[in-house]
Amino acid sequence: ANMELIEGNMCTFSTGVVRVQSRKKAESSLTFTDPSTQQQILSWKSTPKTVLLLKKLGQELLEEAKEVASFLYYQEKMNVLVEPEVHDIFAQIPGFGDLHERVDFVACLGGDGVILHASKLFRGAIPPVVSFNLGSLGFLTSHTFEDYKKDLRQVIHGDGTLDGVYITLRMRLQCEISRNGKAMPGKVFDVLNEVVVDRGSNPYLSKIECYEHDRLITKVQADGVIVATPTGSTAYSTAAGGSMVHPNVPCMLFTPICPHTLSSRPVIFPDSAKLELKIPEDARDNAWVSFDGKRRQELLRGDSVRICVSPHPLPTVNKYDQTGDWFSSLTRCLNWNQRLEQKAL
Amino acid sequence: ANMELIEGNMCTFSTGVVRVQSRKKAESSLTFTDPSTQQQILSWKSTPKTVLLLKKLGQELLEEAKEVASFLYYQEKMNVLVEPEVHDIFAQIPGFGDLHERVDFVACLGGDGVILHASKLFRGAIPPVVSFNLGSLGFLTSHTFEDYKKDLRQVIHGDGTLDGVYITLRMRLQCEISRNGKAMPGKVFDVLNEVVVDRGSNPYLSKIECYEHDRLITKVQADGVIVATPTGSTAYSTAAGGSMVHPNVPCMLFTPICPHTLSSRPVIFPDSAKLELKIPEDARDNAWVSFDGKRRQELLRGDSVRICVSPHPLPTVNKYDQTGDWFSSLTRCLNWNQRLEQKAL
Amino acid sequence: ANMELIEGNMCTFSTGVVRVQSRKKAESSLTFTDPSTQQQILSWKSTPKTVLLLKKLGQELLEEAKEVASFLYYQEKMNVLVEPEVHDIFAQIPGFGDLHERVDFVACLGGDGVILHASKLFRGAIPPVVSFNLGSLGFLTSHTFEDYKKDLRQVIHGDGTLDGVYITLRMRLQCEISRNGKAMPGKVFDVLNEVVVDRGSNPYLSKIECYEHDRLITKVQADGVIVATPTGSTAYSTAAGGSMVHPNVPCMLFTPICPHTLSSRPVIFPDSAKLELKIPEDARDNAWVSFDGKRRQELLRGDSVRICVSPHPLPTVNKYDQTGDWFSSLTRCLNWNQRLEQKAL
Amino acid sequence: ANMELIEGNMCTFSTGVVRVQSRKKAESSLTFTDPSTQQQILSWKSTPKTVLLLKKLGQELLEEAKEVASFLYYQEKMNVLVEPEVHDIFAQIPGFGDLHERVDFVACLGGDGVILHASKLFRGAIPPVVSFNLGSLGFLTSHTFEDYKKDLRQVIHGDGTLDGVYITLRMRLQCEISRNGKAMPGKVFDVLNEVVVDRGSNPYLSKIECYEHDRLITKVQADGVIVATPTGSTAYSTAAGGSMVHPNVPCMLFTPICPHTLSSRPVIFPDSAKLELKIPEDARDNAWVSFDGKRRQELLRGDSVRICVSPHPLPTVNKYDQTGDWFSSLTRCLNWNQRLEQKAL
Repeated sequence: ANMELIEGNMCTFSTGVVRVQSRKKAESSLTFTDPSTQQQILSWKSTPKTVLLLKKLGQELLEEAKEVASFLYYQEKMNVLVEPEVHDIFAQIPGFGDLHERVDFVACLGGDGVILHASKLFRGAIPPVVSFNLGSLGFLTSHTFEDYKKDLRQVIHGDGTLDGVYITLRMRLQCEISRNGKAMPGKVFDVLNEVVVDRGSNPYLSKIECYEHDRLITKVQADGVIVATPTGSTAYSTAAGGSMVHPNVPCMLFTPICPHTLSSRPVIFPDSAKLELKIPEDARDNAWVSFDGKRRQELLRGDSVRICVSPHPLPTVNKYDQTGDWFSSLTRCLNWNQRLEQKAL
Repeated sequence: ANMELIEGNMCTFSTGVVRVQSRKKAESSLTFTDPSTQQQILSWKSTPKTVLLLKKLGQELLEEAKEVASFLYYQEKMNVLVEPEVHDIFAQIPGFGDLHERVDFVACLGGDGVILHASKLFRGAIPPVVSFNLGSLGFLTSHTFEDYKKDLRQVIHGDGTLDGVYITLRMRLQCEISRNGKAMPGKVFDVLNEVVVDRGSNPYLSKIECYEHDRLITKVQADGVIVATPTGSTAYSTAAGGSMVHPNVPCMLFTPICPHTLSSRPVIFPDSAKLELKIPEDARDNAWVSFDGKRRQELLRGDSVRICVSPHPLPTVNKYDQTGDWFSSLTRCLNWNQRLEQKAL
Repeated sequence: ANMELIEGNMCTFSTGVVRVQSRKKAESSLTFTDPSTQQQILSWKSTPKTVLLLKKLGQELLEEAKEVASFLYYQEKMNVLVEPEVHDIFAQIPGFGDLHERVDFVACLGGDGVILHASKLFRGAIPPVVSFNLGSLGFLTSHTFEDYKKDLRQVIHGDGTLDGVYITLRMRLQCEISRNGKAMPGKVFDVLNEVVVDRGSNPYLSKIECYEHDRLITKVQADGVIVATPTGSTAYSTAAGGSMVHPNVPCMLFTPICPHTLSSRPVIFPDSAKLELKIPEDARDNAWVSFDGKRRQELLRGDSVRICVSPHPLPTVNKYDQTGDWFSSLTRCLNWNQRLEQKAL
Repeated sequence: ANMELIEGNMCTFSTGVVRVQSRKKAESSLTFTDPSTQQQILSWKSTPKTVLLLKKLGQELLEEAKEVASFLYYQEKMNVLVEPEVHDIFAQIPGFGDLHERVDFVACLGGDGVILHASKLFRGAIPPVVSFNLGSLGFLTSHTFEDYKKDLRQVIHGDGTLDGVYITLRMRLQCEISRNGKAMPGKVFDVLNEVVVDRGSNPYLSKIECYEHDRLITKVQADGVIVATPTGSTAYSTAAGGSMVHPNVPCMLFTPICPHTLSSRPVIFPDSAKLELKIPEDARDNAWVSFDGKRRQELLRGDSVRICVSPHPLPTVNKYDQTGDWFSSLTRCLNWNQRLEQKAL
């Protein structure tokens, strides 16, 4: 209706446009004219040409991947890129020649792991991702395989009414390991779910110093600390007692794991926070860090992990819309608030 | 440094300027150029002229109020407005004549209750509030009385370095009671902390239907439901198990009270959410609603409360800055993460 | 096998025997020879003669009640007692004459509410209760109606192998209201689930003083305090964050409701505790107390509720055995630890 | 008063008597005549002769240990046994000859770690332990060093009024590792706090099968599972969300660590439970087990840990009495329910 649109090309190399609406402070008074977070819609300036097709590791889903690739290539006339390990199979499909072209969007087959993999492939801006679960339960994979043709056509040509499809811009966290106060070369990681600093298999609880904008906020004595995105709020952070946060809330969750004090509680920072988790020089033991559950490595005394919002969110295409998909995931994956109807006890 | 400022008059009647910085999506790529939430600074276009001075109810703090009023009037040459009940006392101070002038800022003496009272006095935009605790513990009252002259001077004339003072724009929620699907006249309430729907003293748990943008999200069977602002996240919502949320995060906390299912968990919505809590037609009992712990009233079967972000936040002047004040409050008021140093058990 | 039995008549007026085994401290050393809590088996010295048949209130389940009554009367030759309100219906069944005889066991039709009602009917010792759920979900009603004949025959004649049936002795709490330090006449209540002191619809949190053996343990500032039996641990206490306790653990759960401090946590007392919850003289408001969710009444400033274990537990006949029935209830009623199988996120 | 005493020698080799009182089911009715758990008092048949003096590892507290040893030896005429590593120091004290005599009680200097060490020294029955903290915070060390002479005299000669001192019999858990269904030789461990099975530094959550009396109760997908004694309930189990249980409650706490489902919750078993935590044959990874935070070792697929109550509790001498000492520990060590007095928010 009265939405003001900010149009833009999709990624630096893309043909798409994301229309968003942000909270503006009206200039003549201290008034919010709109909430900060709204539906975001992907629409293309010109029809997308190239898709990157990803599938879960191993021999599973090969037939499905071939089927989708054929559909996109023969019926939608798209260039279909695949990863090296599935390249040979697709190479047998006629016309799959030189694949070094740019990607307009990514199609994933499998569970959340495939999307986490896509997140790792792109260092800078990420094209929109549409993900089909095939029996896997996943928070990020709201599309079922049965409707793949219809769903892919909507991504490419737009839903008739919207002139686009709803997408969720999923914040990522940029994490950097420092030693002796200096960034270590090659130690920058983007995470979609969470970064975790924990005691590994050390017998003693970690004491972790937590800084925000270089100011010591607190010392946490616990099995570890999770810093999660809203997307990751329903994964490990929830297991450690964190709240479940809608992906449109621009924030970071700071969730201690089994804190060794009764008065600890999860804390949620704005996305402007610059966090640092540091292993004190006088810590009893080393600690460990992992990024989206992978790339686990040791932190020595004095090491730290610096965490801020990544400039490059991961856009995921919604099945319905942002809030509909999210609550559907809560129910489907976590049985959130489900119970048999019962008489009051 | 490279902050881009959006300048604006302070309130419709004010002489101040709030400089803020919002997250912009760069137009040519899907990239966040800045986080959405940043420090906000209050600076005045011209020196403020009028202050509203509020104190806690009752006979306490009268001397302190006189002292502050005298300081502002004689030394700072400001117009000092007071509420009717303390008006007579101040009327004895020479020069307190016609008080029907506009307010540039509000000074509060007492705990959080005085700020909640200020929040109620202003229906539309609210001028900045500076609050002095006098022994009361409060989340919103970070200034101590000892430094009141220095602190007030900084509000009026600016901190030398900043050309202003840091403020926190505290989101409020606009709540409206509906009956038979129609808004009830006179039943609109703005809250700074939270709105609560509960079973009151009914023996049976409430079953509350929860809608977001008119879509049924879930049915909660519980003692009640809290919808809180980030400011209210450290009050009742925390007691019910909610996370503690920095006031700069644009969101609403949805926190069930003693939910009657193991799989319930607090949920955090973006500030664009339009929530509705409805007592079903077939509920066993009526329910109750309260606003910032006040104005408690009954909800009949079929009634609902509609909740969205208010366009008018409450700006509070920080003692240090937004994050410093907040963590200081967590520690001061809740003993957050405090413990005696101890050997690992 | 090598179980040592303590035999005893079932209730003062019963024909049954309960064999139990308790933890003995061996006399010549500081050694537990057996854990304190073991399977308890009900066996009869002579075949039971009289049953009290209870059903849920209202017109439901009348046919089922008639069917069970007929079975017990005609086939098992038992005297069948019913409550006044269903008495007239049963009176039409030939042979239901004078009903003022003693009860050997109680048969309940309906949910947990019927058992709570049975608990209220007996001030002193309670005969064993066998309970059939009929569509109602209940923690205490493990028997389904389909097998009622077989199940009742086992209660009466014993399971072939056991020479009896497993029962769970469910602890009850004896609660007494005091005013000005003196027990109020007629204000003694036995509860099977929990006693709750709360703020009712008062706006302010209750501050409740908690004593154990007349020693002040803590002051709780909260919406209220629950003192629950293990049986009640899976009801309101769980909703307030308490652990789920097997009914054989001799203890009382002390569970604050929405405590207004981060460092509060549920506490579990031994069954030897003598608790007292007191409304301080200087409380802001009165409070309320309820017993198993019923008989709600006001507590004035200075009033207190004294709580200790009741000498009279409520014995419930198990479907399988104590632990099997309990975990089956956790799963059936609370979906405890249920989830769809999922890939690690 | 009307306490019925069960007298017994203190350990097989001791001169002491523990008087306890257990819940008896009256023989002629289904009635508890007394709660199961009561104050326990240590009194000696003849004055104790031999004390084992333990101190924390390292060079600390040597002076204090000498002081206590001298007091017990010269003034109380006791035999004082020490561990090998401090033996040489004590050997210089005249009269410390042959030390292979029996121990009447143990005196510990240091924190809870020294008591855990004492627990490990005794495979069978354990003599009473009196523990002095020296600046260390500890749950089990309620005696301060300043009063050591008075406190030791009371242990030896009895408090004038009681003819003994209060003690707490602290349950221990007997844990045994099985491989291929068979107990592994030498793999039996007694724990005073807890046994933990966890995923160590494996990236994947453990799925642990939980049996009670050989019946599958549930499968836990989590970072791990804690089985704790009441003594251990205030240690790691509390950090993982478990309730705090008075040491007189005869039970085992089953507390999942970061369970990967919303509907999980800690469960408390009676002390008659026979638990088994098993790594399934098809688990993704091995797991780890540790006993009181020590003796960490790997569990292969198919391995399990069998857990039951140990026949040998650890008796600790109370400073005041069981409940007084416990609440004092909660407050001292965990700041339980502590907060500054505050206005209602």
